[in-house]
Amino acid sequence: MTSRQRFLSACACQPLERPPLWVMRQAGRYLPEYRALKAKSSFLEMVRTPHLAAEVTLQPLRRFALDAAIIFSDILVIPEALGQGYKFREEGGIGMEFRLENRAQLDRLDPSAVAEKLDYVAQALALVKTELKGERALLGFGGSPWTLATYMVEGGSSEDFSRIKELFFTDRPFFEGLMEKLTTALIAYFQMQIRAGADAIQLFDSWGGIIAGQDYEAASLRWMRAIIAALPRDFPVILYAKGTPSQLTDMAFTGARVLGVDWTVDLGVVRRLVPAHVALQGNLDPVLMNTTPEIVRRETTRLLETMRGTAGHIFNLGHGIMPQAKLECMQALVDTVSGWR
Amino acid sequence: MTSRQRFLSACACQPLERPPLWVMRQAGRYLPEYRALKAKSSFLEMVRTPHLAAEVTLQPLRRFALDAAIIFSDILVIPEALGQGYKFREEGGIGMEFRLENRAQLDRLDPSAVAEKLDYVAQALALVKTELKGERALLGFGGSPWTLATYMVEGGSSEDFSRIKELFFTDRPFFEGLMEKLTTALIAYFQMQIRAGADAIQLFDSWGGIIAGQDYEAASLRWMRAIIAALPRDFPVILYAKGTPSQLTDMAFTGARVLGVDWTVDLGVVRRLVPAHVALQGNLDPVLMNTTPEIVRRETTRLLETMRGTAGHIFNLGHGIMPQAKLECMQALVDTVSGWR
Repeated sequence: MTSRQRFLSACACQPLERPPLWVMRQAGRYLPEYRALKAKSSFLEMVRTPHLAAEVTLQPLRRFALDAAIIFSDILVIPEALGQGYKFREEGGIGMEFRLENRAQLDRLDPSAVAEKLDYVAQALALVKTELKGERALLGFGGSPWTLATYMVEGGSSEDFSRIKELFFTDRPFFEGLMEKLTTALIAYFQMQIRAGADAIQLFDSWGGIIAGQDYEAASLRWMRAIIAALPRDFPVILYAKGTPSQLTDMAFTGARVLGVDWTVDLGVVRRLVPAHVALQGNLDPVLMNTTPEIVRRETTRLLETMRGTAGHIFNLGHGIMPQAKLECMQALVDTVSGWR
Repeated sequence: MTSRQRFLSACACQPLERPPLWVMRQAGRYLPEYRALKAKSSFLEMVRTPHLAAEVTLQPLRRFALDAAIIFSDILVIPEALGQGYKFREEGGIGMEFRLENRAQLDRLDPSAVAEKLDYVAQALALVKTELKGERALLGFGGSPWTLATYMVEGGSSEDFSRIKELFFTDRPFFEGLMEKLTTALIAYFQMQIRAGADAIQLFDSWGGIIAGQDYEAASLRWMRAIIAALPRDFPVILYAKGTPSQLTDMAFTGARVLGVDWTVDLGVVRRLVPAHVALQGNLDPVLMNTTPEIVRRETTRLLETMRGTAGHIFNLGHGIMPQAKLECMQALVDTVSGWR
């Protein structure tokens, strides 16, 4: 059984000897070879240059026996392709070119040529696909409409998200106009990723947890459901949201084949809560990767044992691996999952 | 019916025409009169000087028809009274005097004289109690053992909480020794607050949400349960944790009379989940207070309607009010709750 088969079997909730493993942000700053590349090219150059994006994508797979690659890219390429560029602020965080605050700006956002503008992502996917030789799974990804909208309306990273919430509560037609454009753009973008060879797509609702529980449907969930419905039937979409444990049941009915779960919830409890045909991904606390291999081995084993006898588990952290993570902890994770029976 | 009676009736889940209202961090930087005092005295001076702490406590009650005062203080007075002082770092956040990392330091922490050392809190409570004339409720508060331990072990504010998690996973006897001392200190501190006139105590498990779901019991919940068990039977303890919606059922069995709920959960759903003899406090999104009075009125009404016909609701935000909150939004909140029938 190849890694790719293992991964796709887990998405389909078929029983497996051991779960497949990949790690959110596995191509990132904790890797010395990533930092070496980053010293020569900026983050955005790496994202926009197919052979660099492909190289970064493959770095963690050369070092570790991971079952899937996730394309190196950024969720904010979508606002950029719509006509709202961005950069990294010197003081940290994201700065958008402008703040989306009036109807004229909204009208200018153009989702019609997203796939063409983001062809560099398709090229990077194709390069990686060739390298992987069908042996390991290849993931595409994108941000949810709600999560992208927070950056666009706030004008970048935000402390309190007051502008997007004010918009949501005071001008629902404007909000929905923006969400429709984002949904259209994301559907085209994901269809392109699938054509380019993605075996699965992870949809990041990273800021899903900042909206009140009763508003999650209107603010975020319905737009993600529309995206999933527009993709090929049974294509594996992994829906990952952070800080939304009380929404997991509703998330299970979006059509997503896999729910990504953050580390604050007992995955065994989620398994009993969520219908058996929906797979689960997660959910080791990423901070453990900053501690010791011994802790990682013990906690990884505990999670594996919790999920023993269940079908449809993709092993992952509950959030992205941090820059200060230790390589020996990552090795301990990989060895423990690979060796588990 | 006085505000105090209304508040205590809500804690006891007795039916009320409208819920009582107070606001987490109601004595804070959004108030011009607070900022004026703060320009003359440091935060820690205000905390340690009974007449200043009492004055700050009373400021929001002079301006707004709130049903309860919460004593102006800080959760970190407990580590300080144990022998581990702190200050506010110039770059923001908390810096502890040292990082708690060895057995000798742990042995030196002394919970025996906490009530004497924190007598200034009792004095401030007594001053406020006199001013309130039994008409409004008076709340004491403290941090949970877990939340306090994060600061003590990390050496202050933390980005990833890796030290406290490493300690929890690698040296459980050390961790439990620390938690026992904190539990002892908090019991003495809360008993002192009750003697000084507190009508209820809010226990802040502010960092409860960073530990994995399956570890919440061992890391935090059991210590809070021990504290509540040591206080007078049926004394109202409000247990507030952030980011722990999946723990609400377990939290309902700590003996806390009230659960404080953050804004990410539908409070109506929590009401159906949690036993009817446990009251709920919350849970408007604090960011709404940074927007417009119209939004605040509408969302406050929506929450009130959600809870209509249920007993045991204390209206509050789902987290502390922010420095950028608008006075007119606070006024809209107070007017809407006060006028609701």
